Amino acid sequence: MTRWRKSSFANRGMAFEQQLDYTNRLYEQQGIAVINKRPTPVKILGRNTRGMVNGYLEKPSTVDYDGTYTGRSVVFEAKSTKELTRFPLDNVHEHQVEYLAKCHGCGAISFMLVEFANHQIVYLLPYEVLEWYWQRAKTGGRGTKSIPLQDFDVHAYQVPPGRVPVDYLQVVEKVWSIGGVAV
Amino acid sequence: MTRWRKSSFANRGMAFEQQLDYTNRLYEQQGIAVINKRPTPVKILGRNTRGMVNGYLEKPSTVDYDGTYTGRSVVFEAKSTKELTRFPLDNVHEHQVEYLAKCHGCGAISFMLVEFANHQIVYLLPYEVLEWYWQRAKTGGRGTKSIPLQDFDVHAYQVPPGRVPVDYLQVVEKVWSIGGVAV
Repeated sequence: MTRWRKSSFANRGMAFEQQLDYTNRLYEQQGIAVINKRPTPVKILGRNTRGMVNGYLEKPSTVDYDGTYTGRSVVFEAKSTKELTRFPLDNVHEHQVEYLAKCHGCGAISFMLVEFANHQIVYLLPYEVLEWYWQRAKTGGRGTKSIPLQDFDVHAYQVPPGRVPVDYLQVVEKVWSIGGVAV
Repeated sequence: MTRWRKSSFANRGMAFEQQLDYTNRLYEQQGIAVINKRPTPVKILGRNTRGMVNGYLEKPSTVDYDGTYTGRSVVFEAKSTKELTRFPLDNVHEHQVEYLAKCHGCGAISFMLVEFANHQIVYLLPYEVLEWYWQRAKTGGRGTKSIPLQDFDVHAYQVPPGRVPVDYLQVVEKVWSIGGVAV
């Protein structure tokens, strides 16, 4: 309990992305997983000798995080919302859902991490669940443009504080039945 | 046989990297695998409304290609040499070997693709084999700074022309015993 509080306070105010970067650094140091943040794709037009470059932003076609855990391919997108009761789907881009779908189709562990910043709760939303809400949003009906917080409790998995600030691999182990045991 | 020649001639003069990009595009279209070229990491300092950016090149810490094949994580570096009888190891950077090692340690399918451009032969060199030659090169003895072509025939796997220009996943299937069957 003490550890939980400590960890929670230590990370208060730390942006979600930084928490994840820190988490991934710890996973890597401990030899648990290699997960990277994908660089923003820049088409480089010129560069000087000191490494300064200019260019233009290319359209991103993937998601922000990917890597390796017990031999499995892991891809996910991370989002944070300040909303109290729902996650608005306009935070998510079509190309991100498409990319998660493609990877899921090739057997990757594919999901989204959603932080409710004010509650300091993080959920892991497996791709299939995201897909369901994403398709529903396309019907355009009232109340379909976001995922209610209470739905996360039923259809997603809360990421508890663990060995690292956002221990999402602990959830991956359970949901995909992999981990310490055999692959 | 006819197909082999055709494919071989069609790709003559096409840079190795382009062949790989094309290969990966076909793999993806056919739903076989999702393999991406990692963007050059640029620390963006500023950008305008038209998407033009300036910044500086960050030190790369990964390798060029990674992705998902039958749920497995795949990482590799691709190199091309114009040498006729050997692959000089100064083509390879320490951080690339370290990254392949880390991923290998987490269970990824980790290797290097080496093209002998003048012979138009491509080999898949599994990480463990690369590691052996890399360590040997550190002894500094004569003849240890490169891998002889004939060693590739013994310790690496030739990538035959296949469904796609550089069908390295065909080799991955055999070497790692995965693929169409069960994972």
